[in-house]
Amino acid sequence: MSLLVKGGTVVNADHSQRADVLIEGDKIVAVGTDLNAPEDAEVHDASGCYVMPGGIDPHTHMQLPFMGTVASEDFYTGTRAALAGGTTMIIDFVIPAPQQDVMEAWETWNGWAEKACADYSFHVAITWWDDSVGQAMETLATEKGVNSFKHFLAYKGAIMADDSVLAKSFHKARELGAICTVHAENGELIAHLQQEMLKMGITGPEGHPLSRPSELEGEAAERAITFADVMNVPLYIVHNSCKESVDAIARARAQGQRVFGEALAGHMLIDDSVYQNKDWDTAAHYVMSPPFRPKGHQEAIWAALQAGTLQTTATDHACFCTSQKRMGHNNFTQIPNGTAGVEDRMHVLWHHGVNAGRLTENEFVAATSANTAKIFNIYPRKGAILAGADADLVIWDPERKRTISKDSHHMNIDFNIFEGWEVTGTNRTTIAQGKVVYHDGELNVTEGAGRYIPRPTFPPYYQAVEKARQDTLPKPVDRMG
Amino acid sequence: MSLLVKGGTVVNADHSQRADVLIEGDKIVAVGTDLNAPEDAEVHDASGCYVMPGGIDPHTHMQLPFMGTVASEDFYTGTRAALAGGTTMIIDFVIPAPQQDVMEAWETWNGWAEKACADYSFHVAITWWDDSVGQAMETLATEKGVNSFKHFLAYKGAIMADDSVLAKSFHKARELGAICTVHAENGELIAHLQQEMLKMGITGPEGHPLSRPSELEGEAAERAITFADVMNVPLYIVHNSCKESVDAIARARAQGQRVFGEALAGHMLIDDSVYQNKDWDTAAHYVMSPPFRPKGHQEAIWAALQAGTLQTTATDHACFCTSQKRMGHNNFTQIPNGTAGVEDRMHVLWHHGVNAGRLTENEFVAATSANTAKIFNIYPRKGAILAGADADLVIWDPERKRTISKDSHHMNIDFNIFEGWEVTGTNRTTIAQGKVVYHDGELNVTEGAGRYIPRPTFPPYYQAVEKARQDTLPKPVDRMG
Amino acid sequence: MSLLVKGGTVVNADHSQRADVLIEGDKIVAVGTDLNAPEDAEVHDASGCYVMPGGIDPHTHMQLPFMGTVASEDFYTGTRAALAGGTTMIIDFVIPAPQQDVMEAWETWNGWAEKACADYSFHVAITWWDDSVGQAMETLATEKGVNSFKHFLAYKGAIMADDSVLAKSFHKARELGAICTVHAENGELIAHLQQEMLKMGITGPEGHPLSRPSELEGEAAERAITFADVMNVPLYIVHNSCKESVDAIARARAQGQRVFGEALAGHMLIDDSVYQNKDWDTAAHYVMSPPFRPKGHQEAIWAALQAGTLQTTATDHACFCTSQKRMGHNNFTQIPNGTAGVEDRMHVLWHHGVNAGRLTENEFVAATSANTAKIFNIYPRKGAILAGADADLVIWDPERKRTISKDSHHMNIDFNIFEGWEVTGTNRTTIAQGKVVYHDGELNVTEGAGRYIPRPTFPPYYQAVEKARQDTLPKPVDRMG
Amino acid sequence: MSLLVKGGTVVNADHSQRADVLIEGDKIVAVGTDLNAPEDAEVHDASGCYVMPGGIDPHTHMQLPFMGTVASEDFYTGTRAALAGGTTMIIDFVIPAPQQDVMEAWETWNGWAEKACADYSFHVAITWWDDSVGQAMETLATEKGVNSFKHFLAYKGAIMADDSVLAKSFHKARELGAICTVHAENGELIAHLQQEMLKMGITGPEGHPLSRPSELEGEAAERAITFADVMNVPLYIVHNSCKESVDAIARARAQGQRVFGEALAGHMLIDDSVYQNKDWDTAAHYVMSPPFRPKGHQEAIWAALQAGTLQTTATDHACFCTSQKRMGHNNFTQIPNGTAGVEDRMHVLWHHGVNAGRLTENEFVAATSANTAKIFNIYPRKGAILAGADADLVIWDPERKRTISKDSHHMNIDFNIFEGWEVTGTNRTTIAQGKVVYHDGELNVTEGAGRYIPRPTFPPYYQAVEKARQDTLPKPVDRMG
Repeated sequence: MSLLVKGGTVVNADHSQRADVLIEGDKIVAVGTDLNAPEDAEVHDASGCYVMPGGIDPHTHMQLPFMGTVASEDFYTGTRAALAGGTTMIIDFVIPAPQQDVMEAWETWNGWAEKACADYSFHVAITWWDDSVGQAMETLATEKGVNSFKHFLAYKGAIMADDSVLAKSFHKARELGAICTVHAENGELIAHLQQEMLKMGITGPEGHPLSRPSELEGEAAERAITFADVMNVPLYIVHNSCKESVDAIARARAQGQRVFGEALAGHMLIDDSVYQNKDWDTAAHYVMSPPFRPKGHQEAIWAALQAGTLQTTATDHACFCTSQKRMGHNNFTQIPNGTAGVEDRMHVLWHHGVNAGRLTENEFVAATSANTAKIFNIYPRKGAILAGADADLVIWDPERKRTISKDSHHMNIDFNIFEGWEVTGTNRTTIAQGKVVYHDGELNVTEGAGRYIPRPTFPPYYQAVEKARQDTLPKPVDRMG
Repeated sequence: MSLLVKGGTVVNADHSQRADVLIEGDKIVAVGTDLNAPEDAEVHDASGCYVMPGGIDPHTHMQLPFMGTVASEDFYTGTRAALAGGTTMIIDFVIPAPQQDVMEAWETWNGWAEKACADYSFHVAITWWDDSVGQAMETLATEKGVNSFKHFLAYKGAIMADDSVLAKSFHKARELGAICTVHAENGELIAHLQQEMLKMGITGPEGHPLSRPSELEGEAAERAITFADVMNVPLYIVHNSCKESVDAIARARAQGQRVFGEALAGHMLIDDSVYQNKDWDTAAHYVMSPPFRPKGHQEAIWAALQAGTLQTTATDHACFCTSQKRMGHNNFTQIPNGTAGVEDRMHVLWHHGVNAGRLTENEFVAATSANTAKIFNIYPRKGAILAGADADLVIWDPERKRTISKDSHHMNIDFNIFEGWEVTGTNRTTIAQGKVVYHDGELNVTEGAGRYIPRPTFPPYYQAVEKARQDTLPKPVDRMG
Repeated sequence: MSLLVKGGTVVNADHSQRADVLIEGDKIVAVGTDLNAPEDAEVHDASGCYVMPGGIDPHTHMQLPFMGTVASEDFYTGTRAALAGGTTMIIDFVIPAPQQDVMEAWETWNGWAEKACADYSFHVAITWWDDSVGQAMETLATEKGVNSFKHFLAYKGAIMADDSVLAKSFHKARELGAICTVHAENGELIAHLQQEMLKMGITGPEGHPLSRPSELEGEAAERAITFADVMNVPLYIVHNSCKESVDAIARARAQGQRVFGEALAGHMLIDDSVYQNKDWDTAAHYVMSPPFRPKGHQEAIWAALQAGTLQTTATDHACFCTSQKRMGHNNFTQIPNGTAGVEDRMHVLWHHGVNAGRLTENEFVAATSANTAKIFNIYPRKGAILAGADADLVIWDPERKRTISKDSHHMNIDFNIFEGWEVTGTNRTTIAQGKVVYHDGELNVTEGAGRYIPRPTFPPYYQAVEKARQDTLPKPVDRMG
Repeated sequence: MSLLVKGGTVVNADHSQRADVLIEGDKIVAVGTDLNAPEDAEVHDASGCYVMPGGIDPHTHMQLPFMGTVASEDFYTGTRAALAGGTTMIIDFVIPAPQQDVMEAWETWNGWAEKACADYSFHVAITWWDDSVGQAMETLATEKGVNSFKHFLAYKGAIMADDSVLAKSFHKARELGAICTVHAENGELIAHLQQEMLKMGITGPEGHPLSRPSELEGEAAERAITFADVMNVPLYIVHNSCKESVDAIARARAQGQRVFGEALAGHMLIDDSVYQNKDWDTAAHYVMSPPFRPKGHQEAIWAALQAGTLQTTATDHACFCTSQKRMGHNNFTQIPNGTAGVEDRMHVLWHHGVNAGRLTENEFVAATSANTAKIFNIYPRKGAILAGADADLVIWDPERKRTISKDSHHMNIDFNIFEGWEVTGTNRTTIAQGKVVYHDGELNVTEGAGRYIPRPTFPPYYQAVEKARQDTLPKPVDRMG
């Protein structure tokens, strides 16, 4: 079965060109002008449109068991919503409970993911340590296609990795050529400040940002960077929400350290005034960690993305409906943390990025797919429109408008943090694995069609870091005595 | 005439792949595995080798009339040396004398360049101002393919552009979508310090760095950045040699400003101890501006390149032989400024970059060709191995060694600042415009074969900057009174 | 004649103590508990009050001829208002017109100042250069007690000092041990942006800040710092109004450079929203240079003062009444630049500094008098309550409130930029030269009582800088050839 | 008994003056010219000399039980050596073992200190936590004159305070108005790197700095600063040895945070090349934590002191003789950490500070005594030459030379890290508690004469921080639901 996308402007991270795209099966086989397609090829006219790689969201939590409930979005509904919004792959997280066998958690999450309708992969969280955990890391990296391990520096008393776990896990990751990633917030201070807020009688959602000031994120980022630096591993910091954190990354990069950073669409566009909303539900809808930040931080994140300090964008998609949020009605520390976005990311970033002159269209592709694919070592299978790449792409109409709303979105959640926002520029068509899965508002997805995408260890930048390390290993001083 | 490069690893800025490269005439027509080549195709076995885009040196001065003499390298010898070293294109500079008609200077330089044997383009320097200069900028940008104008903030009393020229030229460049570039050193302070040094009896080459401390470069970089910032134009700073300058760029980029920076191979690898050489000639050989810097600055430049603060590498190739350097025997301020390097850049950067784990091979390509092509808007015609691109490439043997020496180099100069350095990794073959111009030590170039490469204005990032500016133009306050 | 201030808390920059202060003539003769005063001593009960050094305002412009008019406040009215507000000394500026004989300007200003009723001194501006200017600097420094020279980097076409003047003047100042000071804004860019704004039809006061963005101030600060750095002179930057400028100073200080900075009370407390006022007069009242800055900059200045990056506070007191401001009714570039404040500085800084927990009372004294006295080398004659010091002091009631208003102020201007602000903490009594000149709202000043205060060159920090310079002078390399 | 110091230049932190100093008993009673002394007053001619406050060393460890041994210097020998070197007061540390009753440790240390011959005070370390520890903090602060608590972020498995202890202790300290201090190094990473080094066969003293890179110190400083910031307490960081740490402090101060920092004389003058010494003993002599740092860091510390980022100087005096150092002969992790210096600090800092033009003589006083006294709230009893202050001072001959050596020093240790250094400027005379305890090489001390100096809580800057906190406490959002 062939498919020809004709007459559009193909936008890759490195450049744009007028070109057709020919797809056979689930692969792109040619990109060029005046391509000869088989007679029976399904032809899509992309005139006036951009043809771009489908989005990759490197940070989602489908079906996540968390804070006494389970995220309302499962792998099927979540990937369906993703496809509707032009995102053709997600990287989710396997999160073992403390003391839980890591491979068991791995199996559990893989089972849940079987119904996904878009491609997916898994980061695996390291939440505790003994020898079995190290052994599992090895199995995952060498046999299961896992090249990234996540560490929560927040969530004390639950999944937080303390400095000792961090040291052991980073050390193991180095042996394996696997990427170390962190959620950077100081869990100890959060726990302390939460108690402080409650003691002061602050029990509502406004207590959430008050107990997680941006300084905590900067501290944890700095700490993780230091661990990575002295242990000689590349580092990827998820959901940088504040100036402190991007400044820490910028300082590290200015020393030549390989530190990467991710930004969430929400953090780039929403500020902390939402927590002052007089309606408890509305304020609670925005409870996620890190929280939305005071005005000013948003611009810092955009600038960091433009500067190359941050490379990727994501959503941290974790859906908890209003009824779930109400679990913390009398105590903000019990409001399940998370917001949705996997369907909306491409749109809000195009509108506020490309349309506003903050990003070129090529930088948009870099930030929404290509850089993620490069960092997590699946490029150019993913993240590029090149012969040989997976046929995951969007036909993007820069003139068409969309109004974001809970009433029209496909995500399994009863509100939308971007409710009512109008954006210009939408995915007219989404093609995944060579099939049209979304077109003009119509979804045509297949439960279970999503494939697990293995990711090889030792991406090129990792090899460079390891080479430099090997070349400069310290030696004992030669002494007589 | 066809040419097939077979069995190598094709390295582009975004990724590497095992692939053949098929060339027809002066263009690459296919990149892929198991390509079918015409029977009569000349086949080059690239097994065990990297196949990379030919280098682009965005900063050379062939045949430059300067400080009372003329650079010893002309466009023929210079581009021949470039090809021998794997660099297939240069961007040189047209530098009108103050009050000289800019178009007249343009014609002069173009005449000189006719004998070039590799492709070339021209930045044009703005060294003074009246209406005719603005008119010439317009003609050059709209009719001659010039998309970059250079401003020397040094060389007081000669080609220095003062703040007033800077403001006028940047303003005109914004209308034209042309890139503003600067040589950042404070010419006024240099002039003052030169006199100070001479008064103290310091007349030798060591006076050169003493009269141009790195702080001066930082100041001028900061100033140019401020002009670009408040006037809303992208900026490209040539030959950043020091921490102060890259810090200034990093700060600007962290605010979201579009500032690009270039590093010279020499500045990355040589420190200022050379000026202490007891042999006057040897010390004088290293006189260039900015000068080589104290230890520590080199690592800062490497780190800036790794961090994305700097994007391009160049040489500022400007050859003055020992006899010319001696013009300043009793007065360092009269030593012609300049060093050679167009032949050696690719080699020293591979060895100290890729072999040392500072750069991946992809980053090497980005830094030696692709980024320059992108910034100066000739990508992917140049800087990439893609179907449709110019057939300018090198077959790079990562195992082969070369010892750099004035005795074996092809540059028209009687010394080499990298004399005796051994490097691992060399261009076994250089292909330019689809022809093998260098192979295994043998040159086969044609005088006059080089083509002028026009560069269109308004590269994508420029359009983004202009869009953002238009969206945020200030408006008068509406007042009754 | 003796005067005893009894029962208060004496606050110096280094510490506070319960103590009486005994004054004989114009000097403090004793500070201590239970002092024995002569029987006929006038006794002032300071119970519940702080007894602090009178304020020194290091930046005023009485009677300034500027932009086609003359400041409405003369040396008598201005110093009277100062005394009413607890400021017992000012440092004003002699500003020669370009090409004007510097000594002639000196005489003119000294003549104007004869009617001052508080002590005063003069910085002298260097606005142009020839040998006579250098000679005048020498005369002033060695015979007239001038230890500071000012350079305007703004006001192109008028009093702006270009880089060449800067180099010559700083060099001369170094020989003399005189302090180099600058007004840091890039005059060239201001001129350019003013024209841009007018072309866009922005003619009202809002054009003023638009043509002087904070980046311009950062640039000029950086430039002056670089000059001072490479020429080895201490530097004092007046009226730092923005983050860019204080960051530049902080960076320099972090390198060990001796850079000092001043903040204006207005810049610390007022933001640029004032220029959006719908009433032209009101908006125009706030036109001064540098302009008031966007929100955020104010906190940066406070923090810089707390951090020690800035040391002094001032007002740049330059009064132009509404009728004068209207000279620029159709063109903001013709609105005379300047705002009043000499009477209000101590009050707004106490209220928003000490009352708000930003400054200790000792830091208040440091910032309002002691640091100025130290930097300009008149400490502890001024700026301290010590035996031997001039008897200039205030008795400060921390509980008493005052509402600032044009209706009650003593400044000769028909509006007040702090109009209607209520402050807690006021000078119940001002004592200058040992005499009560203000008490409970009543002024008792004498025209002409103010004395010129000479300031010796080579303050201690200057000697240190010069010592370090002498110790590290470069030497020629010893070569045979 | 009266004592008159006559004809010298009295140097305080704020200024210098020609003045005599009259002492009665243990107090200074007058400072001035031509003082009338009682007839029987002992007169010391200080012509040509500076008369300065005796040094205060805020960081010593006399008689410290540590790493399986006990520091060789006890409170008698240590304070005797201090007096010999011009230091008239020390602040030592009470360090409870984990789980040890804090008050018991307090008693123990106080017992040891009874034989001191100079004044002393105690910081108390918080090394673990339960309610009794908090109770002890309260007792110490309210009844025992302890206003500072120390936290070791290093020494895992021994006295390290983890984040949880930190949060609890800082919180308690805030209630008490006591100063939080930290030793900033990441103990977890040190433990990890120590094992790494040993595994690589690096067992000698060179392993010490390799396992404690400066990045670890920066991280811990940043972390402590964040805790202090979000918990609203002032912070004092001991022995900043590196650029990373002082940069962290500078950043915090630039935000207006009250962070203070201390530098050790050793760190300011000695670099890490000492650990490469071929002689094991020599290399081991320099083992202390943080270790001596690579070249470049020393200048950063000096600059930070000049800039006001650091305020105090100390020694971390902890003497372990060669035989003790040898405990770690086969394993650097067992070499007792510590170096001597209490006797030499004033001399090396005068020579390399004042003589080199880095510090004025007033800044020297600030850095060696006055700032410590202010921060720890015993100023002006200590740290100033004022009527009413303790009669602790030195008569300093700026021309006299001394050669530092283990053969002549008074410290109870068999080597000196400054061995053989010649300095110009020495304490001809030390006066402590109004008595001449050292003169021209002769000591005249009394065991047990030293007094415990209580330090009140809530120094002025602390009150300001608390005021600002109270003024900005968060409030709950008022919601109907």
